[in-house]
Amino acid sequence: MRIGMLIIGSEILQGKIVDANTVWLAKFLSKKSLELQLTLTVPDQESAILEALKTLYTHCELVFCSGGLGPTKDDITKETLAKFFNKSVHFSEQAHQNAQANYQQFNRTLPENHGYSFLPKDFIALSNPAGFAPGLWFSNGQQHLLAGAGVPKEFSALIDFHFKNLTKPYLTEQKPFTLLNFRTWGVPEERIFKEIDPSLWIKLEAFGSVSSLPHTLGVDIGVKVDDVDDSKIQMIKEIIDQSPIKKHVWHVGFESLEEKIILEAGKRNLTIGFAESCTGGLCANRLTNISGASKVFWGSIVCYDNSIKMNLLHVKPETLQNFGAVSEQTAREMAQGAREALKTDYAISLTGIAGPQGGTSEKPVGTVWMGIADGSGVQAEKFQFNGDREILKMRFSQIALFKLLEKITYRDQE
Amino acid sequence: MRIGMLIIGSEILQGKIVDANTVWLAKFLSKKSLELQLTLTVPDQESAILEALKTLYTHCELVFCSGGLGPTKDDITKETLAKFFNKSVHFSEQAHQNAQANYQQFNRTLPENHGYSFLPKDFIALSNPAGFAPGLWFSNGQQHLLAGAGVPKEFSALIDFHFKNLTKPYLTEQKPFTLLNFRTWGVPEERIFKEIDPSLWIKLEAFGSVSSLPHTLGVDIGVKVDDVDDSKIQMIKEIIDQSPIKKHVWHVGFESLEEKIILEAGKRNLTIGFAESCTGGLCANRLTNISGASKVFWGSIVCYDNSIKMNLLHVKPETLQNFGAVSEQTAREMAQGAREALKTDYAISLTGIAGPQGGTSEKPVGTVWMGIADGSGVQAEKFQFNGDREILKMRFSQIALFKLLEKITYRDQE
Repeated sequence: MRIGMLIIGSEILQGKIVDANTVWLAKFLSKKSLELQLTLTVPDQESAILEALKTLYTHCELVFCSGGLGPTKDDITKETLAKFFNKSVHFSEQAHQNAQANYQQFNRTLPENHGYSFLPKDFIALSNPAGFAPGLWFSNGQQHLLAGAGVPKEFSALIDFHFKNLTKPYLTEQKPFTLLNFRTWGVPEERIFKEIDPSLWIKLEAFGSVSSLPHTLGVDIGVKVDDVDDSKIQMIKEIIDQSPIKKHVWHVGFESLEEKIILEAGKRNLTIGFAESCTGGLCANRLTNISGASKVFWGSIVCYDNSIKMNLLHVKPETLQNFGAVSEQTAREMAQGAREALKTDYAISLTGIAGPQGGTSEKPVGTVWMGIADGSGVQAEKFQFNGDREILKMRFSQIALFKLLEKITYRDQE
Repeated sequence: MRIGMLIIGSEILQGKIVDANTVWLAKFLSKKSLELQLTLTVPDQESAILEALKTLYTHCELVFCSGGLGPTKDDITKETLAKFFNKSVHFSEQAHQNAQANYQQFNRTLPENHGYSFLPKDFIALSNPAGFAPGLWFSNGQQHLLAGAGVPKEFSALIDFHFKNLTKPYLTEQKPFTLLNFRTWGVPEERIFKEIDPSLWIKLEAFGSVSSLPHTLGVDIGVKVDDVDDSKIQMIKEIIDQSPIKKHVWHVGFESLEEKIILEAGKRNLTIGFAESCTGGLCANRLTNISGASKVFWGSIVCYDNSIKMNLLHVKPETLQNFGAVSEQTAREMAQGAREALKTDYAISLTGIAGPQGGTSEKPVGTVWMGIADGSGVQAEKFQFNGDREILKMRFSQIALFKLLEKITYRDQE
């Protein structure tokens, strides 16, 4: 079954909000070995929605639809779907009861003039586990439609709850496949394939389809093998092991850097703390997005103002005076001070210039000093990055987390 | 000129990455009073790209295209565009020099077999201010194409640099319009328009097109007025002022809560600190994403482990013992302790259960206690939210920032 997605929302095309439903749906489907073929985003306009449905059903059998199911006047999805499938809109007892139940789950009463009891003929109203606006399901055997409210938590809860039952009669068993993912860091895509290992792509391609995915945090090299075969997987891993790219691969799999740190530190019973100036809490925030972080992450002292650096991290006033907040000396004292205050095995400090203001010719925007303190002392290193404020914060935190991971896993070799 | 966007990338349809270019482009265009009409996302497959271009040029004259311009074998955008416009691919001296310049800006030498010197006939290679892969421009007078690499920093830098010059001959002067945005918080969309003020929509519609945008953080009510007319703007603002929705409006404009806090605290010379347990640094991270945060935000103590709560915030061991970390008493002592340690005018504490583990029947996942300490003492309040770990962290931080904003602006009325 080919699957498409229609995103209805002028606010997305105007840049007011980001569509978060496509990536959620794509992930949801990939866990079931299914893949989106096509997505379209259109404004809340009847003609645009009708055209998009025509395009989607030319290429797909199942179309997901998000947005325009709410109670306000600009919500026209239901009426437009009726028009597309040439159905009249009628009062439906099933829809009425469904709407009542959506309200009851939040101890609320269905308001007057809600309109939720009216449905295109042959459509089914779907309970919304996370909101009021019902979802919709329609199938004429060849074309299937699953529509939900655009609010991400409602769309995801709805699809998660209803997908399996509704599509079961139409979905054929998927052939299992294997996805291998080699996460690299520190080298741009084309250095990997043009300089570091020019024959890598061809070697990997013998086992499946190869992809290269550059993103802010590195390049992921993927190999999709069309079956599940341990010997093939082993051979692919050996190709990477024997390639000069090997030393840039920090993880085989889809886990994030945060997950990897918590896993590796957890295995070794190590605890982690930060002293964050320029990253403003981002390192701590990233680690605590992972369930189970509390086992290894103890805390962070976000020391935006220099008084905090002095009072809580015991950075000496003369250090700030003589070398400035963005300096090797300050980074060292911050890391040491954080390790003492937080009583962790490792403490990582970051002090830099995220911009757009505050740069000088000597210390331009993008400069960062990082310190790592452990039982054996303190090390400090300087890095220079490009980007706007949020990208720089992300890159600063990324280098700190990578250096931390290196430190944690390197211990084994000592 | 009608504008569309083609996003090329199997990795987006597989949920491996989020397309960040559409929202950037939509914002970029809206500043120029232009609007995207349609976007399509397709895999890196020739037939899918060709079909998508056909669809786009049926509805649009200018098509932006992101992705598939890199150096690896799955990058087929250039060849496919040549096929669509029926052009042969040839060696271009302009493209060759452009590629050399893209490398020189990073002090790198163009590698062998880079392929960047080959272009579809009549296409122009565009310098990439943030990477190696050149962008592309083509126009036959009726159809225009502007293509850039998919990496967000490269795509945005390219469009930002080239858009104006390339499109100038084809863009007619845009009629100016006014966008009013009323940001509300704490009431779902349909309570606003069905219960709180059922005639609001119709009243606003007399002045322009109305939109309602629910998101995780509240509902934005927008009015787009087709000209610039101060008296109309004044009348729209009066409608809101006289509506019962007024008390839920926290801002008129497009600024974020973070920007608003920094603005309002800055005006009053107030300083802010946090003691963050369950939010793990998110409050601090959000405020420090805003340039100028350092004027009002001094620091945060992220106290994930109870030892940090005791050692740095002086929460009493018996408080943790008798009431638990997620309790009114702990929230109060955390806020008080943070205010003393950070020496700020306000200190906000958060202690709660972000899940998925750690909930009990008495304190389920989603429970949070928030404390605010200022010169007059400490207040604490309990809230209960739904969602997964990251959504809960976001909601916890959101309530804290809203309560902080209330506190800051309420001061004036004391």
